[in-house]
Amino acid sequence: MTAVLVSEVGPRDGLQSISRTMPLEAKKAWIRAEAEAGVREIEVGSFVPPALLPQMADTAELVAFARTVPGLAVAVLVPNLKGAERGIAAGAHKMSIPFSMSETHSIRNVRKDHPAMVAEIRAIADRVRQEPAETRPHFEVGLATAFGCTIEGPVEEEQVVRLAEAAIEAGAAEVGLSDTTGYANPAQVKRLVRKVKAAVGPKRLNTLHLHNTRGLGLANALAGLEEGITTLDSSLGGLGGCPAAPGASGNIVTEDLAFMLAAMGIETGIDLPKLLAVRAILEEALPGEPLYGFTPDAGLPLGFGGRA
Amino acid sequence: MTAVLVSEVGPRDGLQSISRTMPLEAKKAWIRAEAEAGVREIEVGSFVPPALLPQMADTAELVAFARTVPGLAVAVLVPNLKGAERGIAAGAHKMSIPFSMSETHSIRNVRKDHPAMVAEIRAIADRVRQEPAETRPHFEVGLATAFGCTIEGPVEEEQVVRLAEAAIEAGAAEVGLSDTTGYANPAQVKRLVRKVKAAVGPKRLNTLHLHNTRGLGLANALAGLEEGITTLDSSLGGLGGCPAAPGASGNIVTEDLAFMLAAMGIETGIDLPKLLAVRAILEEALPGEPLYGFTPDAGLPLGFGGRA
Repeated sequence: MTAVLVSEVGPRDGLQSISRTMPLEAKKAWIRAEAEAGVREIEVGSFVPPALLPQMADTAELVAFARTVPGLAVAVLVPNLKGAERGIAAGAHKMSIPFSMSETHSIRNVRKDHPAMVAEIRAIADRVRQEPAETRPHFEVGLATAFGCTIEGPVEEEQVVRLAEAAIEAGAAEVGLSDTTGYANPAQVKRLVRKVKAAVGPKRLNTLHLHNTRGLGLANALAGLEEGITTLDSSLGGLGGCPAAPGASGNIVTEDLAFMLAAMGIETGIDLPKLLAVRAILEEALPGEPLYGFTPDAGLPLGFGGRA
Repeated sequence: MTAVLVSEVGPRDGLQSISRTMPLEAKKAWIRAEAEAGVREIEVGSFVPPALLPQMADTAELVAFARTVPGLAVAVLVPNLKGAERGIAAGAHKMSIPFSMSETHSIRNVRKDHPAMVAEIRAIADRVRQEPAETRPHFEVGLATAFGCTIEGPVEEEQVVRLAEAAIEAGAAEVGLSDTTGYANPAQVKRLVRKVKAAVGPKRLNTLHLHNTRGLGLANALAGLEEGITTLDSSLGGLGGCPAAPGASGNIVTEDLAFMLAAMGIETGIDLPKLLAVRAILEEALPGEPLYGFTPDAGLPLGFGGRA
């Protein structure tokens, strides 16, 4: 393991989880500063109906802006074919659709059972293929609630494997495993990554999307790295922690993840002092919003950088 | 890996790091409740001069009390031979002496260079051997600042290996690796555990003492488990975080560690709901003191226990 892609999802997963709407200019400043700190991929928003998530209403403008940032891969979340049409029109480089492994969760959240979701994935994949190869977005399926569901409880691993195969068969370029609920543990991460890679092929599963709900986020990330995961989603300041559970952070924290990878000698392209400075943008734009992470408070170890 | 010993160090490392003194009765209630929750080893205090650490002045009384708790291994920290004499007199089952791998840190903290520390370890080991075998305490050397020092910065791994060998040669039963400063990363943990085990023998290094200063505590614990570590120190509520760095927790959090191990199917003997309930004793005895950990806020996953 010599290089890992840290994919910042804060502007999407973080901001959609809090009730306030960050002003467009602050979002742009955040994206620009984090890209300048060396983050190479940012999920800037989602193409959901603005009536449902007003925080994400400016996603098309953000995609247009982010495409002007040199070297940045611009990702968006799309809930369905309609969202994908908007993503393609906006010019996103990468589109992900969440596909909940818990059918109850899927029906509750997007009113679609598993066969309906596979049909939607197929429709998006077909639509994406109509784009010219040079501008065609990369289309990924995020296997949500893959490690357990807050409604159903445990989710069968064989079900995750079967639905991952169905997503690839329907035309997705790759699948990712999402611990939407913060239920995952390192042994489970290793087992499930291994099983899904075996089923869909090792190149078709590269990404883990982890939450730090029970404090195991970085341990789960480490387990994934050991099984060949090369992309880790994370959120600056762990933005988006559950307000109902104070202290229960949202996504794994970009600052701590980037520190761990750098300390381990894994290349990410990220300049740590610059990354830590980006946090000030969040603090200013969202005063009083809880932010998470330990490295920002503790600072880098003495002599860090000289040697890991 | 089927079983791990979680060694609670909060009554020592947590309480010595905060300025308030927890009343003796609250300490007893904490120790009793945590033992009843299934924790099998607790470091109840340290035999340092009460003038230096008044929070630890009642350690002898706590050892006497803890020895009455069924099945509990009673550990103490001793800084020198004089402390060890007090530990033996009190009837501790296990005594650890911190031995700082950074000589500057050692001189600054205990006014002893490395040769003086090895002489002290030898004097304690000789004294311990005079005790009858059936009551002789287990004597361990904690290799402090093994992953880096806040004064010296990086610490040479070969120096840690050499000093670990010296500690064993001087008569310690085993050594443990301590990330006193929260500098460790998983790659370094694996490397150093492997090197020290190779030098002193695999049975002579079983323990990791980790801090969560930069959020990597459980990832480091996982790395240690993968290299055959079988004892992990931790502190309930991560008590003892650095007040100068808010958010920078102290020891790894017992609650999150116990959840991780249980979720991975590793036996610890701990009843998680009972353990989570012990936190109320800290909250009541130390009102307003920052406590850490995510599992206590998030709760256990739905269906947890039925299946991991």
